[in-house]
Amino acid sequence: MSDLEARAEERARELVERCTARGVTVATAESCTAGMVASTIADIPGASSVLRGGAVTYVDEVKHELIGVATETLERFTAVSDVCAAEMAQGARERFKVTCAVSTTGYAGPDGGTADDPVGTVYFGLATPDGVRTDRRCFEGGRQDVRRAACCHALELLLDAIG
Amino acid sequence: MSDLEARAEERARELVERCTARGVTVATAESCTAGMVASTIADIPGASSVLRGGAVTYVDEVKHELIGVATETLERFTAVSDVCAAEMAQGARERFKVTCAVSTTGYAGPDGGTADDPVGTVYFGLATPDGVRTDRRCFEGGRQDVRRAACCHALELLLDAIG
Repeated sequence: MSDLEARAEERARELVERCTARGVTVATAESCTAGMVASTIADIPGASSVLRGGAVTYVDEVKHELIGVATETLERFTAVSDVCAAEMAQGARERFKVTCAVSTTGYAGPDGGTADDPVGTVYFGLATPDGVRTDRRCFEGGRQDVRRAACCHALELLLDAIG
Repeated sequence: MSDLEARAEERARELVERCTARGVTVATAESCTAGMVASTIADIPGASSVLRGGAVTYVDEVKHELIGVATETLERFTAVSDVCAAEMAQGARERFKVTCAVSTTGYAGPDGGTADDPVGTVYFGLATPDGVRTDRRCFEGGRQDVRRAACCHALELLLDAIG
């Protein structure tokens, strides 16, 4: 297990413990991580009282149809944008009826990326009872490194939100 | 990386290669694996032309609302059943508009299980243009072992279906 995977497992364990203690539920909407965040949470015994579900929205059409990202958002800002990340998180929060939902959308590489958002760039959305916020990170390394780093950061955003 | 993870990565690589060559698309509906199958596919460069999406349907309500498993199925057979696995795969195939969809639903442990379906039991569904079939396996080991073995088997079912 890599350092990033070990850190993600630790975060997931903390998340399941805290959410269980506080009656908080979570869900995910994942593009570049494609289910890794939900799966890392589900690796922890007791996850079933915390994780309700997740959407792996790998292509634009699925982002729109499964969790309600506006077609206009995808056309105007592309899927790798803070606007899309926010709509993904909000859509997942409503769709899965959870306290908090996190989203990921980015360029894991090796292809893709733009001048402003090179390969390694990932946008995150976090929807909580207080509203939605977004975050942007640019991770180093290859495809697997970027995806694992994004997974870890998504878990940390959920932990921060739960407090 | 464990042997099971290395085998899953190898299967995913083969899957992305074969699907790309044949123009085949895939999706997942995952309960006990909770996104691990989709994420393992997404780890392979080029996955974006093959994987359209996935549903992490961890609780019964999400199985019904997100991919259309009948409430009667869940009540009569429970979520850990061949009937539910078949409906999950069929629902994912329709919902994500893909050639083939695979589903997983089982008891990863440490809690859960019944006399007939002890901890480690996982039902799989495979929906293809030829129809839907199911499979049942009982895996050894702890929660993480069961989930990784189920992920690997789901990828092998997809590979078998694609030929």
